[in-house]
Amino acid sequence: MNKFWETGRKIVAVGRNYAEHAKELGNQVPSQPFFFLKPTSSYLLQGTGPIEIPSESSDIHHEVELGVVIGKKGRDIDLNSAMDYVSGYTLALDMTSRDQQSIAKAKSLPWTISKGYDTFCPISGFIPKEKIEDVNNVELWCSVDGQLKQKGNTNQMIFNIPQLIHFISTIMTLESGDLILTGTPSGVGPVRPGQVIKCGISGLNNDMQFDIILRKKN
Amino acid sequence: MNKFWETGRKIVAVGRNYAEHAKELGNQVPSQPFFFLKPTSSYLLQGTGPIEIPSESSDIHHEVELGVVIGKKGRDIDLNSAMDYVSGYTLALDMTSRDQQSIAKAKSLPWTISKGYDTFCPISGFIPKEKIEDVNNVELWCSVDGQLKQKGNTNQMIFNIPQLIHFISTIMTLESGDLILTGTPSGVGPVRPGQVIKCGISGLNNDMQFDIILRKKN
Ligand SMILES: [Mg+2]
Ligand SMILES: [Mg+2]
Ligand SMILES: [Mg+2]
Repeated sequence: MNKFWETGRKIVAVGRNYAEHAKELGNQVPSQPFFFLKPTSSYLLQGTGPIEIPSESSDIHHEVELGVVIGKKGRDIDLNSAMDYVSGYTLALDMTSRDQQSIAKAKSLPWTISKGYDTFCPISGFIPKEKIEDVNNVELWCSVDGQLKQKGNTNQMIFNIPQLIHFISTIMTLESGDLILTGTPSGVGPVRPGQVIKCGISGLNNDMQFDIILRKKN
Repeated sequence: MNKFWETGRKIVAVGRNYAEHAKELGNQVPSQPFFFLKPTSSYLLQGTGPIEIPSESSDIHHEVELGVVIGKKGRDIDLNSAMDYVSGYTLALDMTSRDQQSIAKAKSLPWTISKGYDTFCPISGFIPKEKIEDVNNVELWCSVDGQLKQKGNTNQMIFNIPQLIHFISTIMTLESGDLILTGTPSGVGPVRPGQVIKCGISGLNNDMQFDIILRKKN
């Protein structure tokens, strides 16, 4: 078992990689990929606890995403060999404090706080590479309290996985255990304490489920 | 020896923590701390190689900063015990692609690319905690080609180290080996290939020096 959530040293999260999602938040489709970092302290493995909502936010959104787990170190990786650097996948949520993100954007400040709280990167565990036959045709879905909220296919991504690996690795070396979050399809929306969020990959027996609670202060 | 650059899983970099530096870039002094993440792949230990300038930027700035190395895991750390979580320090440069950061800010995008290139976090190594008597009175300096560019004292910080540890840990759990960059004093400016950058802590035998080269593509 590849415990990338215990050993990996970065989470690179790509923004606006599905045109419909860019539009739903009133954003333009980017002409080259952009990304931000989530801290590895935000990992929450399925079955180990609930997603925590910080009291200073009133608008926490779910963003279901396919995560790509890096298997070996590389820099300036070319498009043709990019998939050789992938060891597997994970199903992930890029939890986002949308109200704090909006304030940060209005002030031209980093997105880090809005993306970086503990439990803000729930994951399903490690999916070996061979379990997904065609990674450019994977359907992801996300429901809240049994109501379907997001459903999208990786064939709708603006930049595909080799393009993302290539681009990111021209800026920062990718290392074994690093995770790339590949962006979210449309349908993002709020979750509240007491709700239950469930996500899956169609055709794969890999559903994950998390309770939502209010974060307690020590 | 604490090799936090090999084991640590995050670099939390605080922005605008010296009033004079906030003013020199035309920014307001923040009312609460803000921060961004640099990837651990950007570490460059003194003596192991040069700082690389990516060809897509024409304005790479030095920001000399005191780094705080975390020694044990903590969340919602209170002000009184914050210094118990510190194992030591490092002298660091928060290298910044100022032109790419300005474009990101204008578009309300993350700062990650402008802060995250390989070699963009040069460090002096580990300074044990007891080597610095009063961390609230440490003078940092930085020179380029022998010309003094930055000189500042941690007593000018807007938020002191316990306040930073407390604030960050209310958002993300701090773990052993994590690094906090505490912000830069005024005097930031560009470096170009062929130049030599040197930094130090006054009174401590801990100077570091790096050559600047143009990043080569593989
Ligand atoms: Mg996302
Ligand atoms: Mg960021
Ligand atoms: Mg800085």
